[in-house]
This record gives sequence, C-alpha cells and structure tokens, in this order.
Amino acid sequence: MRGFSLNQATTKRWPLDELAAGCVAAGVRAVGLWREEVQAYGVDKAARLMRDSGLTVSSLCRSGFFHEAGWYDENRRAIDEAAALGTDTLVLVSGGLPGASRDLDGARRHVGDAIGALVPDAKAAGVRLAIEALHPMFCSDRCVVSTLDQALRLAAPYPASAVGVVVDTYHLWWDDKVWEGIAAAGREGRIAAFQLADWITPLPEGVLLGRGLPGTGSVDMRRFARAVAEAGYQGWVEVEVFHEDVWSRPGAEVLAEAYEGYRAAVS
Amino acid sequence: MRGFSLNQATTKRWPLDELAAGCVAAGVRAVGLWREEVQAYGVDKAARLMRDSGLTVSSLCRSGFFHEAGWYDENRRAIDEAAALGTDTLVLVSGGLPGASRDLDGARRHVGDAIGALVPDAKAAGVRLAIEALHPMFCSDRCVVSTLDQALRLAAPYPASAVGVVVDTYHLWWDDKVWEGIAAAGREGRIAAFQLADWITPLPEGVLLGRGLPGTGSVDMRRFARAVAEAGYQGWVEVEVFHEDVWSRPGAEVLAEAYEGYRAAVS
Repeated sequence: MRGFSLNQATTKRWPLDELAAGCVAAGVRAVGLWREEVQAYGVDKAARLMRDSGLTVSSLCRSGFFHEAGWYDENRRAIDEAAALGTDTLVLVSGGLPGASRDLDGARRHVGDAIGALVPDAKAAGVRLAIEALHPMFCSDRCVVSTLDQALRLAAPYPASAVGVVVDTYHLWWDDKVWEGIAAAGREGRIAAFQLADWITPLPEGVLLGRGLPGTGSVDMRRFARAVAEAGYQGWVEVEVFHEDVWSRPGAEVLAEAYEGYRAAVS
Repeated sequence: MRGFSLNQATTKRWPLDELAAGCVAAGVRAVGLWREEVQAYGVDKAARLMRDSGLTVSSLCRSGFFHEAGWYDENRRAIDEAAALGTDTLVLVSGGLPGASRDLDGARRHVGDAIGALVPDAKAAGVRLAIEALHPMFCSDRCVVSTLDQALRLAAPYPASAVGVVVDTYHLWWDDKVWEGIAAAGREGRIAAFQLADWITPLPEGVLLGRGLPGTGSVDMRRFARAVAEAGYQGWVEVEVFHEDVWSRPGAEVLAEAYEGYRAAVS
C-alpha cells in the first residue's frame, strides 16, 4: 500500500491551507478531499495548493445521491472536480430511498442505471467511480448499497478501471462475508479506496457523527489491512472519521492520532 | 398465519393486567411477553393471568446475552419461565463483543457453542430457541448475529423443533438476501416468530428506541408478510416497537394502531 492519507472530514474544521501545511510538516503525502470544502475554498485554488504542497489527492468525496433531483448534472460536476484536483478516485454514495418510497429493489436498480449513465463521463475524465457501501443503518436515508457484495455487483458490468469499490472498515466490519468480498474485489482489481474508521458506541442521534479514530473501537483494523493488502491493493490508506469530539480538537493533534491508528493497523 | 399478537414492549408502560384486559376487549388473542416485566409481576401470576384471560403467549423475550457472566444459568431460568408461561418460543439475542474484544469470529463461535449447550434444556422443557438477528448497528454491544443467513447457520446443527429463527422486519429489511433466507427458513421449518416494526429516521441517541409502528416507515411490510406466508409460516405476527413517543401514549390507542399496521401488512 502507498501509505497514509488524511481524509479531510477527520479534521473538518482545519482550514485547507493549514491542513496542507500540517500534512507537509508531519511528512504526510496524501489527503482525501470533500467537495463541499473544496468548493468553498475554490476548486482550482485547492488543486494548486495540493500541487504546490506536493500532496496527492487520494480521493474526492463524494458524488452519488441518485435519489435527488438533478443527480446527473451534479455527478458530472463532481467528475470534473475530481479531474481538476488530479485524483483518479471519486467516491460514490448512492443515496437512500426517494421520498416516502419503500421500493428498495427499485432504488437499487436506479443506482445501477445511474452508474451506467456516468461511466462514459468518468472514463473520458480519467476518473474512477468508487462505489461505497454504507452501513445498513444508512439504508433509508443515505445509501441503499449496504454491503461490499452489493457494491461489487453494481460494479460488475463495467471495466475495473472505470468502476471500483471502497473498503471502509466502519461500514463493513460487522459483515461475515466481507473477507470473501475483499478477496473477490482484489481479484477483479476493483479496490479503489481503503478507509479506516472505528466503531464506537453509544451512537449519537442521527448516527452520522459516531465514528472513532482507528484503534478506539470494536473493529479489527489489522485484519482489514491484511486482507486488503493480500487482495493486492496498492493505493492509499485514508483515515476518515466523523465525530464532534474529534472535530473540536486541533488538526495537528488529530492528524498524529489518525496516523498512529493507521500505523498500528498496517504494521 | 395465526393472527396478530401484541408484543408487550410496544406498550411498555401498560401494566400487565390492564394490557391483558385491553387485549381481550379488543379481540386480540395473543401477546408476546418480556422477562423483566413478567418477573416484576410474578411469573406464576402472569401465567395465571394469561390463562384466565384466554390469551396465548406467542413468545417470551429474551434470553441470550452470552457475552455476560452467568449466561448459562440465566438462560436456564429463561427456559423455565417460558415453559411456565406456556409459550413454545423463547427469543434469543446473542449479545455483543465481550469487553474490549475485537474478535467477532470468536464471539460468533461462542454463540454457537452456547446454543448447543442450551438445546438439551430447551428440548426437555418443550421450548424452542428462536435465534434473532439484530440490525448490524447492534453488532458490537447487543448481538453479533447480524443477518438471517447467520441465524440459520447457527440453527442448522439442531432440529428445527428445538432451534428456529426470528424474522423481524426492523432488523432485516435492508438485506437483499433476506428473501432467500426467509424461503430457506421456511423449507427447514425454522421460522419461529415473525415480528413487525418499521424503520424511521432520524435514529435517536443509542439507537435502541428508534422503531416505528408498522406503516410509518421505510419497510415494505406487505412483502415481508407475503414472503413469510409463502414460506409456510403459520404462527403469530407480533408487533414489537420500541419508541419513547409510542410508550408515552395510552396502551389501548397504541394497540389499535399496532393492529391496523398488522392488518395492512397481511391483507
């Protein structure tokens, strides 16, 4: 694997230029970025900052949300932004059930169709769509893709160079089939991103901001790192944690702990 | 299917004798009981109340929690209580990871061993152990059995008359494999209980008390009812909802809505 990458969401309140300087000072060579933050900073300006800092953008989060109106144009913009930032990986979170629908199969079919519609655009831009399965607790409102197996089936019709999958420990750790899934994803060359976050309880209201830094919870990070390495993954290892307690701390301190969590996982 | 059953947890603050009278008044013929409430009321007294009211106890919740010290004796007591209440179904929730363990495979093996240890006791008492898969968001702290497929594999070594599985819409609705699982469970004669609750968001802190009455959320209840019926299930259909807003309302009112949710699902 190429090494540690700090996903920007882990240090959400660290301004991008300070984050870049902090990463350089700490010897970190890659960062995962988020569209919202990049847009606020300016896409071209962010791309220049990354280049001038010698930082690789390991991924851009996120496109998808195919249950929302205007999803096609929005995803086209996301592909352009990824290309502008020089990253080859655009993380795709499918979105949940549209409105009051209970047609989960239909929503999942729509995700497949939407990915198919975007593949030519992604190919043309040299950006790979990385389908992320989110924990089943997000199924209704954020992501109807709930397992790595589902993500792989959605990716299957397309070349691995155009559509891959994300292995995120937080979302997948509970699944006894995940090890087969990682091995299969490796054989197909589809592991596009590997993200670390730990499972801690109690979950907060809304459950979105309940993640722990790697090493602080229930996930066997070393097993995941081994499985992904054995599957032939050679990309970056992002630490991506959303938690109010983490966000409220100084970026450099969180960066150091995130790196320690990474090191313990891969060593 | 035999008809509607009110799981006591849906009307948690309705005293048991009032609940029994309310069910009789509403023409409801079965209730699912919880050990804590039954113990507080008195097990023999509760059994008498049920008999005198002409109510069937569709299930007793819950045994399991094999990650806790003293689990064997506690589960033995639960089997005895089920027998005393005249129910043939004891719902089993496995428990989570012990202490700070990250050994999920080991915890799951332990659940299998624990069930094996209890089977002779359950058989002797004429009580069937009903393995319940809980939503993956409970994997670390409540139940390492996260899918119907896992529950079926845990049950497989034992006769279906001794070990069955619970189909609970709340825990299983997100799983694209659940339909195969229900069909397989039917072929094996292992569907021991069928419980309805709906998925609503946002989830509250701790996520335990976030369920909706059937019909208020994202779950396709009719599809579940059809699948379970087609799988040959002939038992009761329990409505089991945990939510502070539901608990704070009058029992009879909640009972009526729970029944409506059932009726809409099975009609």
